[in-house]
Amino acid sequence: MKPKRSFASDNNAGVHPRVMEAVAGANDGGHVIAYGDDPYTARAEAAFREHFGEGAEVFFVFGGTGANVLGLQSLTAPHHAVVCAATAHVNVDECGAPEKFTGCKLIALQTADGKLRPAQIEPCLARAGDQHHVQPKVISISQPTELGTVYTVEETRALSAFARERGLLVHMDGARLANAAAYLGATLRELTAEAGVDVLSFGGTKNGMMYGEAVVFFDPQRARDFKFIRKQGTHLPSKMRFISAQFAALLAGGLWLSNAAHANHMARLLAAELARVPQLNLTQKVESNAVFARLPPEHIAAIQKEYFFYVWNEETSEVRLMASFDTTEEDIGELVRVIRQAVG
Amino acid sequence: MKPKRSFASDNNAGVHPRVMEAVAGANDGGHVIAYGDDPYTARAEAAFREHFGEGAEVFFVFGGTGANVLGLQSLTAPHHAVVCAATAHVNVDECGAPEKFTGCKLIALQTADGKLRPAQIEPCLARAGDQHHVQPKVISISQPTELGTVYTVEETRALSAFARERGLLVHMDGARLANAAAYLGATLRELTAEAGVDVLSFGGTKNGMMYGEAVVFFDPQRARDFKFIRKQGTHLPSKMRFISAQFAALLAGGLWLSNAAHANHMARLLAAELARVPQLNLTQKVESNAVFARLPPEHIAAIQKEYFFYVWNEETSEVRLMASFDTTEEDIGELVRVIRQAVG
Amino acid sequence: MKPKRSFASDNNAGVHPRVMEAVAGANDGGHVIAYGDDPYTARAEAAFREHFGEGAEVFFVFGGTGANVLGLQSLTAPHHAVVCAATAHVNVDECGAPEKFTGCKLIALQTADGKLRPAQIEPCLARAGDQHHVQPKVISISQPTELGTVYTVEETRALSAFARERGLLVHMDGARLANAAAYLGATLRELTAEAGVDVLSFGGTKNGMMYGEAVVFFDPQRARDFKFIRKQGTHLPSKMRFISAQFAALLAGGLWLSNAAHANHMARLLAAELARVPQLNLTQKVESNAVFARLPPEHIAAIQKEYFFYVWNEETSEVRLMASFDTTEEDIGELVRVIRQAVG
Amino acid sequence: MKPKRSFASDNNAGVHPRVMEAVAGANDGGHVIAYGDDPYTARAEAAFREHFGEGAEVFFVFGGTGANVLGLQSLTAPHHAVVCAATAHVNVDECGAPEKFTGCKLIALQTADGKLRPAQIEPCLARAGDQHHVQPKVISISQPTELGTVYTVEETRALSAFARERGLLVHMDGARLANAAAYLGATLRELTAEAGVDVLSFGGTKNGMMYGEAVVFFDPQRARDFKFIRKQGTHLPSKMRFISAQFAALLAGGLWLSNAAHANHMARLLAAELARVPQLNLTQKVESNAVFARLPPEHIAAIQKEYFFYVWNEETSEVRLMASFDTTEEDIGELVRVIRQAVG
Repeated sequence: MKPKRSFASDNNAGVHPRVMEAVAGANDGGHVIAYGDDPYTARAEAAFREHFGEGAEVFFVFGGTGANVLGLQSLTAPHHAVVCAATAHVNVDECGAPEKFTGCKLIALQTADGKLRPAQIEPCLARAGDQHHVQPKVISISQPTELGTVYTVEETRALSAFARERGLLVHMDGARLANAAAYLGATLRELTAEAGVDVLSFGGTKNGMMYGEAVVFFDPQRARDFKFIRKQGTHLPSKMRFISAQFAALLAGGLWLSNAAHANHMARLLAAELARVPQLNLTQKVESNAVFARLPPEHIAAIQKEYFFYVWNEETSEVRLMASFDTTEEDIGELVRVIRQAVG
Repeated sequence: MKPKRSFASDNNAGVHPRVMEAVAGANDGGHVIAYGDDPYTARAEAAFREHFGEGAEVFFVFGGTGANVLGLQSLTAPHHAVVCAATAHVNVDECGAPEKFTGCKLIALQTADGKLRPAQIEPCLARAGDQHHVQPKVISISQPTELGTVYTVEETRALSAFARERGLLVHMDGARLANAAAYLGATLRELTAEAGVDVLSFGGTKNGMMYGEAVVFFDPQRARDFKFIRKQGTHLPSKMRFISAQFAALLAGGLWLSNAAHANHMARLLAAELARVPQLNLTQKVESNAVFARLPPEHIAAIQKEYFFYVWNEETSEVRLMASFDTTEEDIGELVRVIRQAVG
Repeated sequence: MKPKRSFASDNNAGVHPRVMEAVAGANDGGHVIAYGDDPYTARAEAAFREHFGEGAEVFFVFGGTGANVLGLQSLTAPHHAVVCAATAHVNVDECGAPEKFTGCKLIALQTADGKLRPAQIEPCLARAGDQHHVQPKVISISQPTELGTVYTVEETRALSAFARERGLLVHMDGARLANAAAYLGATLRELTAEAGVDVLSFGGTKNGMMYGEAVVFFDPQRARDFKFIRKQGTHLPSKMRFISAQFAALLAGGLWLSNAAHANHMARLLAAELARVPQLNLTQKVESNAVFARLPPEHIAAIQKEYFFYVWNEETSEVRLMASFDTTEEDIGELVRVIRQAVG
Repeated sequence: MKPKRSFASDNNAGVHPRVMEAVAGANDGGHVIAYGDDPYTARAEAAFREHFGEGAEVFFVFGGTGANVLGLQSLTAPHHAVVCAATAHVNVDECGAPEKFTGCKLIALQTADGKLRPAQIEPCLARAGDQHHVQPKVISISQPTELGTVYTVEETRALSAFARERGLLVHMDGARLANAAAYLGATLRELTAEAGVDVLSFGGTKNGMMYGEAVVFFDPQRARDFKFIRKQGTHLPSKMRFISAQFAALLAGGLWLSNAAHANHMARLLAAELARVPQLNLTQKVESNAVFARLPPEHIAAIQKEYFFYVWNEETSEVRLMASFDTTEEDIGELVRVIRQAVG
C-alpha cells in the first residue's frame, strides 16, 4: 500500500519530479569546482536576479534555520534585539539558534494572526540609546506567517517604512514565500526588494525541493561579509551544484509558483470542507497552505492515528493541517472523511 | 565534450550512481515524517550500528564543518581547549567555526605529517588546573589527516590511552574515514569505537554522496543532549530521509569501502607515475586518496590551466592532488602527460 | 552645600565608612598574592561559610551583572532556557548579557509583583524533550524582586521543590538579598541553601560596598569549573583582597543586616508618608528598600529637578524610589515636601 | 613583622596612598548618579583627553581582561582573526576570553622578544578574501610586552602603517603602558593616537590603583556602540566614581609616570645586581619593570620559599621578577642576598 500523503507538514512531502530530474542532471556534469564556483550555481544565481532584481545577492545554504540565523547575524551585533512575533519560527522552533548564533535577545510580541504591525513595535523602542537595555535593530517577519496568514505588500511596506524611520532593518523568513506570492498574485520582487526587505530567507525545501534554502540580500553592501558568515556558520555546501540545480529547476519555468499555488488551493479546499463540519472551528484565515482549526480534544488522537498532524496549541485544542505541492483532492476527501467519522 | 575529472578535490566529483538511485528511491515513499522519524533513517541508523557497534548513536547533519563543530561542542565548555594539528581542517579550513560555536581556543601543533602524538600534547597540559589558562579537553585528530597520511590503529589507541589518562576526550574528523579503513584493512569499529574515539565525524560527501555527514557517539551518555545541539546548531535536516537513504546505500553493500579503495588505488597509481618525473618530489606518504608533491613553481599555472588543483603551500610550491571514487587510469595518464609536458 | 542624598538608586550612595576603613586596612598589608590567594580572601570566604553553610563555595567578582551571567552560565548549555520574571534584572537591565554569555533564551513571564510561581512555569515545560524547542533548565528569581517585593521562605521552597521535581535548577539574583533577610527576619542560609537555591548572586555594592559581588554555590560539584568560568568571564579581580576586605567588613559584625534593615525602614517610612498624599498611589508592597508609586505625570519633571529618580513605567506613570543605607528621616521629609509642593 | 614586598607581580602590590586618598575623597561626595554620569567621571575623562588627545573617547571598566576582550570585540566580527604574539596576555593568560567574547581565532606568532613585526604578519594575510579561512582584522600588541620589552614609537608606527595598508586595525594592550612611556620618554599620545593605535587598554591596577582599567578609542566612530558592548560585557561599574577618582589621581599630577618610572628604575637596578651573579642569565632586555632571568632549576624552590615569584618557562628555567611602584632598594638588596645565598 502506498503511504498516505500527510497533512502534518509540507516537510513530509518528497521532492517534485522536475526537481529530482534536475538533481540527476547535475550529476551528469562530471567534476565541477566545489563550493559554488560552478555553472549550475551561476545559472541559479541568475534566476534569482531575474526574480528578485539585478541588485539581489544570493547565497545558498543547507536549511531554513541556518538561513534565518545567518541572515540575522549579518544584520546585528550581540547587543541588538530582534523584534518578532511570538509565533515566529525563529522564536519557537529553532531551539534557540538565533540567540546562540547572534547573541541577541529576541523580543517576541503576542499577535492574533502572526503578523507584526508598527504600532506594536513602537513601545519596544522606548529605551533606544540607553546602555542598560538591548537595542532593537531588526524586525523579523515571516511571510506567510506561521499561522498561515499573509502580509499584504502594503503591510510589509508599512513595516519597512517604520523600520527605516527608526533605524531598524527588516528580515523576512520566507520559508514559504512562494505561497504568499501565489496568494497575493505579486512577484517575488514586489514582496521583498520593492517592499523594503533587507534580508530574506527564501525557502525551497517546503516547496518541492530536497534540501537547500537561500539567503538573499537586496543591498550588496550588506552581503559583503556574508560568504564568511555562511562558511563559519557551517552552511557552505561543498557540492553546491545540487542545491543550485534544484533552485534553477524551481525558479526557471514557474514551478515555484505552480507548486505553491496548488498547495494553497488544496488548503482552501480543505478549509471549505472543514467549515462544513459543525464540531470544527477554523481559527485563522487561509491565505497560504496552512489550515488552523479547533478540534474537539477528545477526538484528536483517533484522527491522528489515521492521519498524523500536529496539535498547535494543546490548551485551545487547535491543530495545524498543511497542504503540499503534491496534495490531491482525493487526499482531502479522505482526511475529511476520517475527521467526520471521528467527530461523529 | 565531457568535462574532465578534476584532481582538485574529491568534493568536485559528483554522486555515485547507486547513491543517486537511493535518493530517487527515497522519493518514491510519498510522505514520511520529517526530521528523522522515518523508516529510511531507521535503516541507516541500523547500518551505522552494524559498522560501528551496537552502542553507537548516530546523528545525521548536512555537512562536514557542522559535524565537526557540533561534535566538538558536545564535548567542551568554552574554557576548554581543543588540541589539534596545525593542518587540521578544524583549524584552517572552517573559517573559525570551532571557535565561534564552542568558544574554545584551538591549540594547533606543528607536525611533519599531519599526525599528533602524545609526547607533543603533553606540554600543552602543563597548566592544567590553573584558572588563567584554557584547559585542554579534547584531542581532535583527522583520519586520514589533511596530508593524506593515516593513523595506524595503534597510533589512535595510544592517543586515546593518553587522553583517558589525562582526562581528555578524543574527537575524530573522519571526513574521509573510509579511505583510512581501506588503507589499513581495518573495520570502521576498529578504527573508532575500539580505538577509544569518543565522537566521530563520519563523512559521506567526499565518498560519493551528494551531501550529508554523520556525528557518531560511542558512549550514549555523551549523545544525550546532542539532538538539541544539532537543532540549535542548524543541522537538523527536515527531509532527513534523503541523507539517510544515501548513507544506507553507501554502507549497505560495501560501496563505502569500494569507493574509498578505488580512490586510494588511483592516488597510489598517480604517485607512482609522478615519482618518475624528475622535476617532482612527493612530500607525503600516499596512504589515502591524496598525493602531495612539490612542483617547480614556474610551471604550476600552466598545469592548472588544463587541470585545476590547489597549491597547498605557496612557499614550498607544494600541491595537493586528490583522487575520487570515479577517477580513472585514463585521467591519471592524461594528468601526468600534461605535467610532463609542462615541466619539460 | 552638601549634595542631596538621592532616591534614584542605592547605587547612587557611596561606601559605608566601615567598609571604607576595611579597604584602607587591606592596603596596610603590603604585598599579598594576587587573584585571591591571600589572607583577606580566606577570611571573607570563611565569613560566607558562616552565613551560608559549610558547603557554600564563594567566588568574588567585580559586579552584579557579571555575577548573574556567570552564575547562569555555570548552570546551562546554550540550548537551555532560563525562566524569569519579565521584570528581572537579567531580562531587562543587562543589555542582553545573559543571552550573549550563555547562548540561552530567556523565557520572561509577566507577573503582577515580580514574583514567579510554579503554576506559571509549568506551561513552559510543555515541550520538554522536543528537539525543536529550547529546554527550560533554570528558574532565575530576584530576591527581593525588582519591584521591591520579597519571596517568603516558603515561596522560594515551593519554587525549588518544583524545580527539583522537573529537573530544573534555581538561580537567585540576590543583589539586595540582605534587604530580604532583614524584612523576613531570616538568616541568609534559610533564604538560600536551605530553601533549595543552587546558585546565588550575593550583592555587596548596593548595600554599602564600593564594588564587588559574590557568586555562591551550595553544591560544591557545581562550583568545580567556576574558577575558569569566572576568569574567562573577565571577572577574576587581580587585587582581590580589596573586594574580600569589603565583604569581610560587611558580613563580620552584622553590618550587612543593619545597613539593609535601615534602608528597609526608610522605605517603609517614605511609603507611609507618600500614602498620605492623595495624588499618589503606592503600586507595590514595600517589603525591601524600594517604593513604587504612581505619580501624576505632569508633575514628574518638576520633582525630578529637585530629586532625580527613575520613571519605572512611562505608560502608567509609575516611579521607583529607593532608600539606601545612608538615607535619613530628614531626606524623606525633604523629598515628601518637594513632592507635596509639586503635586499641589 | 611587615610582610615582604614581593617580586612576583605588580598585582601583588597594594594601592598608592594618593590613589587611596582619592578613593576616600570620592566617598565624601554623598550621592551621585551611578554608571558614570557623575562629576568624578567627567574629570577623569577630561584628564584622559589631556593625555591622549581631544578626540579620545574613554570608557572605564573593572579589569584588564575585560578591557582587552571588549576592545577587541568592538573591532571584530566572529569570522575575523586577531594576530598577536604567542606570549600575549590575550593569548595565554585570559583563559580563552578573547575567543569566547569575540568568536574570533587568535593567530599567535612566535617571537624572540614578545614584539610583532610586519614581516611576520604578512604571511598570515595570504588567504585574505578566501571564505574558508578566518580573516585577520586586528593586530594586537602589548606595550610593554609580556617579556618586559618596549616597542619604540617607530616600531608601533610601522605596525600601524602596515595595518592601514592591509585593512587591519591596531589594538594595544597597555596594561603597563605607563612603564613604556617612562622608558621611552614619550607622551601617552605619542605612543598611541599618534602612533596609529585604534583601541587601547590603558591599565591602572598594576600601576598603583586598586581596580579599574580604561578602554580608549582614538576614532570616535569606533566608540559609538561601545557603551552597549561594555554593559553587555558586564563591565559597566555602578559606582563608577570610585574608578574615575583613581584614574584622576593617577593622571592628574604625574603620578602615573612617577610610579612607572620608579618601578622601571627598580627593575634596572635589580637586573644590574643579578647580572653580577655568575649562575644567572638575563634573558630579555630590561625596558620596563620586568626582569627575566634563567636560574639554576635546582635552586628555584629555595629562593621561592623566601620570595615567591613565577617560573615563566619551566623548560628553560626562566623566571620573571617584577618591580612595583613601591619596590625599594632595600627589597632588591634582600632579594639578591637570598638568591646569592641559594645559588651559592
